[in-house]
Amino acid sequence: MNLLLASTSTVHGQPYLSYFKEAWSAHFANTQGKPVIFVPYARPGGMSFDDYSAIATKAFAEHGIAMRGIHSYPSIDAAMADAGGVFIGGGNTFLLLKTLYDSGAFAAIDAAVRSGLPYMGSSAGSNMAGMTLGTTNDMPIIYPPSFDTFSWIPCNLNPHYLDPEDHSTHMGESRATRIAEFHQHNNQAVIGLREGSWLKVEAGEISLLGPHSARVFHSGKAAYEQAPGPLQLNDRLTLPRE
Amino acid sequence: MNLLLASTSTVHGQPYLSYFKEAWSAHFANTQGKPVIFVPYARPGGMSFDDYSAIATKAFAEHGIAMRGIHSYPSIDAAMADAGGVFIGGGNTFLLLKTLYDSGAFAAIDAAVRSGLPYMGSSAGSNMAGMTLGTTNDMPIIYPPSFDTFSWIPCNLNPHYLDPEDHSTHMGESRATRIAEFHQHNNQAVIGLREGSWLKVEAGEISLLGPHSARVFHSGKAAYEQAPGPLQLNDRLTLPRE
Repeated sequence: MNLLLASTSTVHGQPYLSYFKEAWSAHFANTQGKPVIFVPYARPGGMSFDDYSAIATKAFAEHGIAMRGIHSYPSIDAAMADAGGVFIGGGNTFLLLKTLYDSGAFAAIDAAVRSGLPYMGSSAGSNMAGMTLGTTNDMPIIYPPSFDTFSWIPCNLNPHYLDPEDHSTHMGESRATRIAEFHQHNNQAVIGLREGSWLKVEAGEISLLGPHSARVFHSGKAAYEQAPGPLQLNDRLTLPRE
Repeated sequence: MNLLLASTSTVHGQPYLSYFKEAWSAHFANTQGKPVIFVPYARPGGMSFDDYSAIATKAFAEHGIAMRGIHSYPSIDAAMADAGGVFIGGGNTFLLLKTLYDSGAFAAIDAAVRSGLPYMGSSAGSNMAGMTLGTTNDMPIIYPPSFDTFSWIPCNLNPHYLDPEDHSTHMGESRATRIAEFHQHNNQAVIGLREGSWLKVEAGEISLLGPHSARVFHSGKAAYEQAPGPLQLNDRLTLPRE
């Protein structure tokens, strides 16, 4: 598999997708004239599929990469037959996963990416690459038929990861507390991916890229900081060799 | 129905449940020697049922109100037969709802409260009184068989409500944006209940209590501030007369 998994589409004060444009333009450099298929199902702010696809298509066009919304094809199969890559954008993770299941796109994208089609996700789209949506930050605005996501990597992601605020008087749980609660019921590691970071998954290796370290949480162990570079894989965070 | 629905169990720097102790000690003043049944299913931080129940029982004992954990009875039916009231504490909303369904407590508590048994919720326990868990802030650490909650009030709650931060550089969505996304798929009003506020529901009327206003969101309308006092009911937020 060949995956690029970004914590966020946008870093504060910068244009959409610009902070890692070198990474994604290289990731999709060999699409052989085929468009990258954009999946707008997560609909940030309730935006229409057309409007959301137009934003992503414009950013890709600036780097000479063709893109087309999955909903603009007569069928999911037609879209995947035309695909030089797939990019699932951010928004609401519950809505995204439900729409992937309901449309039949889940199985089609899963098969194509497992066969080597380059995949990119941002935020909710990155959550899809993990084992479940159980570590999303989103509101459960709609009930999906399952919380299971693609399981392309043997862990979960927490995008937009935020460190606990030392001086907060708000009684809502910190991200770290929420992930500790997740580990009461789930075994997989969770990578807290800070805004501006992304993961590259290729040839059986997961690497952290971008300027920040990541926070890695294992069930029953102390969390630790992971510096940019190849992830320290262990028994609970091991990619199957391809 | 007779409900007390608090945004949080604890206000920063104050003991557990203390900020609205006059309200809940009056709410449970006429239990006729029967214990208030505590439901510890939301397990904040993964705390055990026994440990969580001990905390709530201690707070109630200081006001001379007997309390007993629902899990300490031989059956749900035995617990409800003994109940002078019910208090569902906060923690993880997904875990709470799944455990309510799996244990059979959901139907038993629903019937008892609809028959007039005094109910109190804090945080996740307050979410249960609304129509769905769709406006929780919690992480979806476990998959419940449904998002439907008790629907004792014809709206949803967002506990621990936080106003958008004007100067934040974090790209995660604000609470108001999340609720707007909820309203793309759901019609019920959402009451954003700030920490230190609670709702009293009695004789067909919902009143906001505590020092803060609440933020009320209706689908397709501008959000507004609701001052403490009876809620301005309208066609989308009307309690059935009892």
